[in-house]
Amino acid sequence: MRILILGGDGYLGWPTAMALSRRDFEVMLVDNYLRRDLCRNLNVEPLFPLPNLFERAKIFKDVSGSSLSVRIGDCRDYVFLSKVVKDFQPEALIHFAEQPSAPYSMLNHEAAMLTLSNNLESTLNVAWAVREMAPDCHIIKLGTMGEYGTPDIDIEEGWIEIHHKGRKDRFLFPRQASSLYHTTKIQDTDLLWFYVRTWNLRVTDLMQGPVYGFLTEETSLDDRLLTFFNYDELFGTVLNRFMVQAVAGHPLTVYGSGGQTRGYINLIDSIACLELAAKNPPAPGELRVFNQITETFTVRQLAEMVKKVGRSRGHEVEIKNVENPRVESEEHYYNPVYTGLQELGLKPNHLTDEVMHKAFSKIEEFSQNIRSEVFTMGIKW
Amino acid sequence: MRILILGGDGYLGWPTAMALSRRDFEVMLVDNYLRRDLCRNLNVEPLFPLPNLFERAKIFKDVSGSSLSVRIGDCRDYVFLSKVVKDFQPEALIHFAEQPSAPYSMLNHEAAMLTLSNNLESTLNVAWAVREMAPDCHIIKLGTMGEYGTPDIDIEEGWIEIHHKGRKDRFLFPRQASSLYHTTKIQDTDLLWFYVRTWNLRVTDLMQGPVYGFLTEETSLDDRLLTFFNYDELFGTVLNRFMVQAVAGHPLTVYGSGGQTRGYINLIDSIACLELAAKNPPAPGELRVFNQITETFTVRQLAEMVKKVGRSRGHEVEIKNVENPRVESEEHYYNPVYTGLQELGLKPNHLTDEVMHKAFSKIEEFSQNIRSEVFTMGIKW
Repeated sequence: MRILILGGDGYLGWPTAMALSRRDFEVMLVDNYLRRDLCRNLNVEPLFPLPNLFERAKIFKDVSGSSLSVRIGDCRDYVFLSKVVKDFQPEALIHFAEQPSAPYSMLNHEAAMLTLSNNLESTLNVAWAVREMAPDCHIIKLGTMGEYGTPDIDIEEGWIEIHHKGRKDRFLFPRQASSLYHTTKIQDTDLLWFYVRTWNLRVTDLMQGPVYGFLTEETSLDDRLLTFFNYDELFGTVLNRFMVQAVAGHPLTVYGSGGQTRGYINLIDSIACLELAAKNPPAPGELRVFNQITETFTVRQLAEMVKKVGRSRGHEVEIKNVENPRVESEEHYYNPVYTGLQELGLKPNHLTDEVMHKAFSKIEEFSQNIRSEVFTMGIKW
Repeated sequence: MRILILGGDGYLGWPTAMALSRRDFEVMLVDNYLRRDLCRNLNVEPLFPLPNLFERAKIFKDVSGSSLSVRIGDCRDYVFLSKVVKDFQPEALIHFAEQPSAPYSMLNHEAAMLTLSNNLESTLNVAWAVREMAPDCHIIKLGTMGEYGTPDIDIEEGWIEIHHKGRKDRFLFPRQASSLYHTTKIQDTDLLWFYVRTWNLRVTDLMQGPVYGFLTEETSLDDRLLTFFNYDELFGTVLNRFMVQAVAGHPLTVYGSGGQTRGYINLIDSIACLELAAKNPPAPGELRVFNQITETFTVRQLAEMVKKVGRSRGHEVEIKNVENPRVESEEHYYNPVYTGLQELGLKPNHLTDEVMHKAFSKIEEFSQNIRSEVFTMGIKW
């Protein structure tokens, strides 16, 4: 199966591309290095060294024998994107080409505008390029569990039947997010759902929780194949950040009381979900939604787990509750459904001490790269 | 009260500006002539001649004695918009500065991209400019009843309490629209609702149905003060188009069976709603939603009414059911609530034969300007 991965240079895109190329997929990657540019400009470089995408593809070919095609260009450029889709004729397309950081989207007006315009224009172009150049191609778009926010009712997988004044109808599950980034993900779903109904596109929307980890079969082949791994306040995500803080001897920065509950997923499972979605496309005219998580934790629980494993490895780990820089509920109801992907065949890899030990071990190898000043950068909303 | 009207050159913006300037408001208008440029480029010029905005303000001053300030610039340009807001310090801001045509948004990729980026970037800039320069300013954004689509349950005014598995919560009423334009209006609501929660902005969202008519106290003062009136397939709206078709002796083009039911409002009432909203701002942190319609009709009913009045004036009026160029339900349930604005004091001007006779009379005066070739331009989705 030919699969086009937009945003193939990123934390998820790169390991997904490598894994799929070894499992029956012909893979082409597209990226414009937006994430690299932002991280360089804001001085929040990732933990592991990162050859450029052509070099990484070359190294991967050398160590694995598998090929990855690379195209460098901007998905907001329709001439570029539509030509790529026309030439490659993908059967599936994974759309990771969005600015993915909530704190970055709240940094200032320029960052907000970049997030909004990049995320929506790239999504519009994806819909148009597929419709015009490869109309049967299955679009797999990354959503986020953050779109739902923390409603006081159970979170269904994308859709809900609403009973109201004696009548009923089926709707997208109501969504209200707690950052501009997450809001753009609500908006990109609305955009694709409109074109699905109008043009009979096939779309899967994967409402993913925070992903953790970086070790896959392929990233473990060679350190130069490690993925884009941020641990800073801007682009790092919670569990990854905590592990790096532990290795650096920095207190784990829990926002507020730490009662925020979210669904999490191991990078290995995230890739498995993408493969399952690609191999089981929805019908034309269907927007299929999965909640892509495997278990839920409070931030407090994650901090306690990292503290325990970190201490057992000789790190001095403390937990520090800092003033919450975000507008969000710190204690709330949270009961999401996430059975769809397991029904498709996902076998979850849960968060265990062993999983954390392996990640710690690699972070320790690269500990000289850790810059503690990026753990707290004062971004507030 | 100082009120800033973005999109002040348009069908709604211009008569609203004139009316408010005569009712205790100090009015500043902003426009970048986007609508004029699109109509000129696509050769769908409006029915009435249109002096530029400075000239119109001068004529209005001469005939009424009331002043309007004019600024020409693009609301997507944040440097421009934030300076206007900083200097004028509006207490209310009406955001009409969006590409408002459903058929235009479906024309081609370029038109889709312009609609998406213009509508969302201008809305983002409005939120930021108000927050940074005039945080207590009340933002009045035009939404559309088209955001709700045609659900099989009653349409509430913006919000719904959902009961689900023994729990309940309050959400924005679910929305799914039938054009890209309408989808961008769903998205701009999500954008403002996010910033309302995060920054305690005051926002009113007016979910307006198709507006008809063009005669207000002020547009009746001088023909050079008439508003931007399209009757073509791209920018014209249904009742306005039917009246011009009748005068031209062109069949009234009903899409499909004509069972599409929508809520309508007279231009005079639309302006009254904006005044009521401005004079009764919501609290900080509140997104207030009104359904801005006064009655509902099927397209069939409108055609029959126009046929009757047109024939009584000596026009040869036929109704022609043409193949529906849109993806929409032609027969459907439709029961929207629209009590909020009447509770604030709106006294509806319903669609009567007399209202139509007055409009017909003015259209007849300008009948030499009608170009029948723009009634049907073959835009499909």
